[in-house]
Amino acid sequence: MAASPAVVPTPLLKDELDIVIPTIRNLDFLEMWRPFFQPYHLIIVQDGDPKKTIKVPEGFDYELYNRDDINRILGPKASCISFKDSACRCFGYMVSKKKYIYTIDDDCFVAKDPSGKNINALEQHIKNLLSPSTPFFFNTLYDPYRDGADFVRGYPFSLREGAPTAVSHGLWLNIPDYDAPTQLVKPLERNGRYVDAVMTIPKGTLFPMCGMNLAFDRELIGPAMYFGLMGDGQPIGRYDDMWAGWCTKVITDHLGLGVKTGLPYIWHSKASNPFVNLKKEYNGIFWQEELIPFFQSAALPKEANTVQKCYLELAKQVRAKLGKVDGYFNKLADAMVTWIEAWDELNPPKGAVATTNGTAKK
Amino acid sequence: MAASPAVVPTPLLKDELDIVIPTIRNLDFLEMWRPFFQPYHLIIVQDGDPKKTIKVPEGFDYELYNRDDINRILGPKASCISFKDSACRCFGYMVSKKKYIYTIDDDCFVAKDPSGKNINALEQHIKNLLSPSTPFFFNTLYDPYRDGADFVRGYPFSLREGAPTAVSHGLWLNIPDYDAPTQLVKPLERNGRYVDAVMTIPKGTLFPMCGMNLAFDRELIGPAMYFGLMGDGQPIGRYDDMWAGWCTKVITDHLGLGVKTGLPYIWHSKASNPFVNLKKEYNGIFWQEELIPFFQSAALPKEANTVQKCYLELAKQVRAKLGKVDGYFNKLADAMVTWIEAWDELNPPKGAVATTNGTAKK
Repeated sequence: MAASPAVVPTPLLKDELDIVIPTIRNLDFLEMWRPFFQPYHLIIVQDGDPKKTIKVPEGFDYELYNRDDINRILGPKASCISFKDSACRCFGYMVSKKKYIYTIDDDCFVAKDPSGKNINALEQHIKNLLSPSTPFFFNTLYDPYRDGADFVRGYPFSLREGAPTAVSHGLWLNIPDYDAPTQLVKPLERNGRYVDAVMTIPKGTLFPMCGMNLAFDRELIGPAMYFGLMGDGQPIGRYDDMWAGWCTKVITDHLGLGVKTGLPYIWHSKASNPFVNLKKEYNGIFWQEELIPFFQSAALPKEANTVQKCYLELAKQVRAKLGKVDGYFNKLADAMVTWIEAWDELNPPKGAVATTNGTAKK
Repeated sequence: MAASPAVVPTPLLKDELDIVIPTIRNLDFLEMWRPFFQPYHLIIVQDGDPKKTIKVPEGFDYELYNRDDINRILGPKASCISFKDSACRCFGYMVSKKKYIYTIDDDCFVAKDPSGKNINALEQHIKNLLSPSTPFFFNTLYDPYRDGADFVRGYPFSLREGAPTAVSHGLWLNIPDYDAPTQLVKPLERNGRYVDAVMTIPKGTLFPMCGMNLAFDRELIGPAMYFGLMGDGQPIGRYDDMWAGWCTKVITDHLGLGVKTGLPYIWHSKASNPFVNLKKEYNGIFWQEELIPFFQSAALPKEANTVQKCYLELAKQVRAKLGKVDGYFNKLADAMVTWIEAWDELNPPKGAVATTNGTAKK
């Protein structure tokens, strides 16, 4: 249950995990990650002009999808995948066939722990995903399954088995993940505080999920990891991961799964342009005030016992309750349904066979 | 709202804070705390034999209450104050006239931060209490009001004012606060992990509140800090702070107040005897499985708009719903009511005068 006295080595899971990277540029940042990422298969989702060639450093095993590929594979359903926005990354989640996904931005580098050692972010995410979460009661010494920690006095024994962990949300040293107004007000702020903790976000509590350094169990929660309609042709950007996080948290809470946040840190190298960000965000900043109460009060019926069913139910509620906030949410609700249809085509139930153009045949 | 660029010195609050120490022995441990505690007034609650003399190191400003004093001041209402259990400390909360309370166990020493500097625990508690909490939404970079931190992207702007902080729960290096079964299973485990974070326990989430290193705002939450009936003549011990924590959390959630946990650390010098602890705890370990669902579903009516009203309502629910778990809870419900009566006598509404024997006169 709790950490055993001997430290167990973390499994690599190299045949069970894909790394998904959305990008518009050559992936030189992978050089720094080579010792940690080279054993894994990469899924690169190229955003923007599909004619551009993205260089990937030698020695990495990867597949790359550009917009033409997405259109070809999904056909009309490609409409649910954002263009000119890192939200396009969720296409990678859909085409993966692995149990686990790690997604990272291409401006994120290897961080150092306080002892100066390079942090193997992926290894920590794997630890987080393979050990249970504790969403039903708060443990004041943080992750009770970590070596040297346990449940404290007063923690109910019946809850010490915890819940399966669906999501591991990692953090960022150097440039913090701030919104445009905070970037504008605090241009010089850097995150230098290494907090040596992993914790479960309690059941019933929403959090801002950042897609920069994020791992999840695709089998447990994959279909909820839709990054929405952002960027080109849409009235909003930079809310892709937030949207996925709110939907995911409501669904993990409903299904009795856990979400962790904290370690590992990556080194976020540079802040994006706050003026550009403000333009992308301003609708989101406004709408968010309605979205949070919506997600805080969203209830899913008992019959919603799979992620897909939960997600379609949420789409229905988005249409019913957020459509009046802005017409955009009706479009988004449609896209949520399309996403699930596309997911199920590419990921048919066991025993069925997916064809190369993504149409499932039983 | 968020931390300002210049670091503001933390106020001492020396005329607004009492330190409450329950003890059965000479207070030699205060020597180590002298640089930090000497400016403050101490309220020492002597447990056990009132004939024993407790030595307090010279130079400290203190008042000391033994069982005879408690009986004299509270009369028949003294029945609500535990005997032969550190739960007696809550008498100190009641007789204090200050806005803030810090309570610490006499086996807790000054801890060192990772740089080797002595930690001024009280200063950190004051910081925690004077800055808002964020119970309504989770901030992934922890306390957004701390220097060098802020609210991350996706945190609703309408929630950035936060809520007044009622409780600051500090942690322990060296001997962790484990229950007897965990002590027995892991006799050698020590907490060496310094987690550099302060966080708000989200609304709707219960936590195990430990009384070893705890500060609170007496004006905001004092009457909820009743440590129950434990020890001599009672079928339970070591659940005093837990009981107070569960009641407090339900009430702070209802009243829109915040509870923080994390920094500061103290150095907990020695583990109590796990065999003795098991005897004190076993009923609690069993009952707790009913108590947690009870507190998780406890709802307070809108009319309960003061801590006292909330607490009396909780007492009613304890009687109605936990009386059937064990007759002890009927006694406890009575004691909860007695506690509030005694509190109100010693702490009459502004404008009224408390007499020395604790009877309030308007």
